[in-house]
Amino acid sequence: MTSPSWLLGELAQRFALPLHGDPSIRINGVAPLARARADELGFLTSKRHLSALESSQAGAAIVTEAHLGTGHSAKLVAHDPMAAFARIAALFEPHHPGPRGVHPSAVIAADASIHPDAVIGPFCVVESGSRIDAGAELVSQVHVGPDCVVGAHCRLLPRVTLVTRVRLGQRVLIHPGAVLGSDGFGLAFDQGAWLKVPQLGGVVIGDDCEIGSNSTIDRGALDDTVLEQDVRLDNLVHIAHNVHIGAHTAIAGCAAVAGSAHIGRYCLIGGAAGILGHIEITDRVTITAMSLVSHSIREPGEYSSGTPLEQNRRWRRNAVRIKQLDELARRVARLETESKP
Amino acid sequence: MTSPSWLLGELAQRFALPLHGDPSIRINGVAPLARARADELGFLTSKRHLSALESSQAGAAIVTEAHLGTGHSAKLVAHDPMAAFARIAALFEPHHPGPRGVHPSAVIAADASIHPDAVIGPFCVVESGSRIDAGAELVSQVHVGPDCVVGAHCRLLPRVTLVTRVRLGQRVLIHPGAVLGSDGFGLAFDQGAWLKVPQLGGVVIGDDCEIGSNSTIDRGALDDTVLEQDVRLDNLVHIAHNVHIGAHTAIAGCAAVAGSAHIGRYCLIGGAAGILGHIEITDRVTITAMSLVSHSIREPGEYSSGTPLEQNRRWRRNAVRIKQLDELARRVARLETESKP
Amino acid sequence: MTSPSWLLGELAQRFALPLHGDPSIRINGVAPLARARADELGFLTSKRHLSALESSQAGAAIVTEAHLGTGHSAKLVAHDPMAAFARIAALFEPHHPGPRGVHPSAVIAADASIHPDAVIGPFCVVESGSRIDAGAELVSQVHVGPDCVVGAHCRLLPRVTLVTRVRLGQRVLIHPGAVLGSDGFGLAFDQGAWLKVPQLGGVVIGDDCEIGSNSTIDRGALDDTVLEQDVRLDNLVHIAHNVHIGAHTAIAGCAAVAGSAHIGRYCLIGGAAGILGHIEITDRVTITAMSLVSHSIREPGEYSSGTPLEQNRRWRRNAVRIKQLDELARRVARLETESKP
Repeated sequence: MTSPSWLLGELAQRFALPLHGDPSIRINGVAPLARARADELGFLTSKRHLSALESSQAGAAIVTEAHLGTGHSAKLVAHDPMAAFARIAALFEPHHPGPRGVHPSAVIAADASIHPDAVIGPFCVVESGSRIDAGAELVSQVHVGPDCVVGAHCRLLPRVTLVTRVRLGQRVLIHPGAVLGSDGFGLAFDQGAWLKVPQLGGVVIGDDCEIGSNSTIDRGALDDTVLEQDVRLDNLVHIAHNVHIGAHTAIAGCAAVAGSAHIGRYCLIGGAAGILGHIEITDRVTITAMSLVSHSIREPGEYSSGTPLEQNRRWRRNAVRIKQLDELARRVARLETESKP
Repeated sequence: MTSPSWLLGELAQRFALPLHGDPSIRINGVAPLARARADELGFLTSKRHLSALESSQAGAAIVTEAHLGTGHSAKLVAHDPMAAFARIAALFEPHHPGPRGVHPSAVIAADASIHPDAVIGPFCVVESGSRIDAGAELVSQVHVGPDCVVGAHCRLLPRVTLVTRVRLGQRVLIHPGAVLGSDGFGLAFDQGAWLKVPQLGGVVIGDDCEIGSNSTIDRGALDDTVLEQDVRLDNLVHIAHNVHIGAHTAIAGCAAVAGSAHIGRYCLIGGAAGILGHIEITDRVTITAMSLVSHSIREPGEYSSGTPLEQNRRWRRNAVRIKQLDELARRVARLETESKP
Repeated sequence: MTSPSWLLGELAQRFALPLHGDPSIRINGVAPLARARADELGFLTSKRHLSALESSQAGAAIVTEAHLGTGHSAKLVAHDPMAAFARIAALFEPHHPGPRGVHPSAVIAADASIHPDAVIGPFCVVESGSRIDAGAELVSQVHVGPDCVVGAHCRLLPRVTLVTRVRLGQRVLIHPGAVLGSDGFGLAFDQGAWLKVPQLGGVVIGDDCEIGSNSTIDRGALDDTVLEQDVRLDNLVHIAHNVHIGAHTAIAGCAAVAGSAHIGRYCLIGGAAGILGHIEITDRVTITAMSLVSHSIREPGEYSSGTPLEQNRRWRRNAVRIKQLDELARRVARLETESKP
């Protein structure tokens, strides 16, 4: 296959970006400003990299109007250079799906429904009652259990597993090793031992969601676990049963959301953050990395927990004082009482 | 296959639950009280949902004696409605194992032993010296390495991997992507580089354990890593080499247990909690979510670490004071000395 | 296959360890001192186990010079008994690779290059343009996507996935379920929704690295994600795009490293620790378990964050005071002002 190649003028026109420079410059790829060559396109999103723009050998750069004068590259002007870059970069890494149809090694249940335009790669399994829609791609070693739907143009990378009753909207992208629809962690304690509470619900994933590598999303106990459209999960994220996540919320790597938590729309959950079960988080809430959300959040804004990093020797001295903090506060109150005239 | 259907009187008799209402009501499923229909059974475990019981359209509900009078549904009376529900719900989601025998695609070592009543699904591998007992099911893409035992009626979901020397008791349930028996993280530092310490032990899993999706349990360095019977692990839990976990302990998602830690029986370890290596936790200890256990715990009870969530602006102001806490405590002590007559 | 067996004198000579005792003792295995038999070798690394050495039935033990007189076993003397043990133990768990060549079930792209001395196990996939070097082993169900290199004598355990543009050095060991080269979590917010930023870089893994089970390493956005030689990752570790990790650094289980972080050489990152994006950590830094690194670290040493574990009732009383800490500090300052003469 030949590598993609565009004239700078074509890119400007295709994405409606004002061009300052020679439209006939040929662009064969994208690259960081610091190492972009004369046939490559860079971009500036932060003033931190202004010096890289100044000295860049890039044929062209995407910048805001403010930086039109910096450096020698031709310029494409964008209100948000990162978004413009995302659109242009996609041209240079075109996705090549596998061949249409079912790989001879795949094992497909007699009553499963595979659209003729779907791609089912080697060592995939599709079980009874499941449906794979047009343009969907199961790359390899994907297991689709019973009663699942994989919507049009979904892409399931190697080893993705949909266990039972998982319904994906359109254009859902799931990275390798992610597991959707496994049993929620439902246990009743009975006569000195655990009794498994059957998990009968499913998982519903909205259009344009993205699920990171080795992340897990459990099926609901009775109702479904739900991700609304355009929810983005990073790697190794755990979503427990009956969680509901609003549209356009993004959750960074290693975060954990406990059962029946309800997260609003346009939230940003930091890496390795924890969210307790049965709580509610309103729209447009940001949780910083490794914070624990232990109660519902009713007001938009940024929230945190945890303590700052210190040299271990200093940290030990301060940490021991945390265990005395209530007593310290009482001692201060006593001093205040005594100091009153 | 036809859907399960029971008369309410049959359910009352089968599970020895007193019935208040018409035994001839036909129950075709279970559902939350809020959306259960006249042929469905709901249950009440929390007073929070009393209003749902009052207005429920459910044909019947499982309640404690105290709520016999609430709402219009027929009632099954249980001391613990959640446990009663767990048993009844299992009737409505019967497990259908795959066909007995070995799928033609599976790769089985010549000296592996597969019970004729076991189910070995597509793309499974069973290596040398391993044994799969009666009624065990390897759903698909399961890898069983050398010298493993999969006990009777175990169920290994897609992509479970037993690496080496893993012995499962009976009725062990392992969710997709879990890895048991991989090398522990054993390293010796020698001449400026890491030297791998061979991991020669195994993993022993007791009867009725459950292991969540993408969780990992490493094999011991010399002795075995051990989970006693009825231990329950949620998703993405990490159990390091030579850990020992007592019977009936449950560990929530994303928790991490470091090497050679010894956890007692009937413990509850919260989500994303961490347990350091070589420590001991006695029986009946509860660790709340995201707490770090850095020393042994000798007394049963509930333990926590961490700080409360706050608005980020307030959190910043308080967090900086934590770094001054030892000094603050000294200043308070000085004031106390000075204020003494 | 016969089990390995060595004379104690052979071991002493092979590893240049002074021997005190009978060189003709036959050693058939290694074991902990407490249960080692007369034909087994133990070792002492900590004074904690001195009593085990005293009463040990082991045929021989590896000790430092200081403990030559303890117990009745023959002794091999080593400056670092753990390192000596690591080398000797490897003799007793020899690795038996699968048969050379490509398993008939494997699916190999026409333009992939497989060295005749490589081992490609069942249900593996190797895609276009990828290369598997001499002595490399893909155990089973391994997926190697396009444009990857698996260096000589690498070992990829079941279900390892290299997504795209992953280059492994020599002797890299990757445990089951690990995913390398999946898309970084790159998103631009545009017109009320997320826009995926194409991830075009790769992953470069140096010689002798080890990657734990179900860990994930994302490919870079434009440049590569890099692990230098001899980096060791435990299970369930997340390495985001464009991270750079220096040689000989070890990262314990469940740790998470955010995008573009730069970690030095010879660092030790504790379990479930978090490292924020775009920060720099110099060489020889230790981060204790569950600490959050929120700013760059310029000085070698040990660093921590977090609070100590307490009984939940006490913890609640102290935790509420953390939210009042800034106010408390101001009150103390006021008292100090007032107490001044």
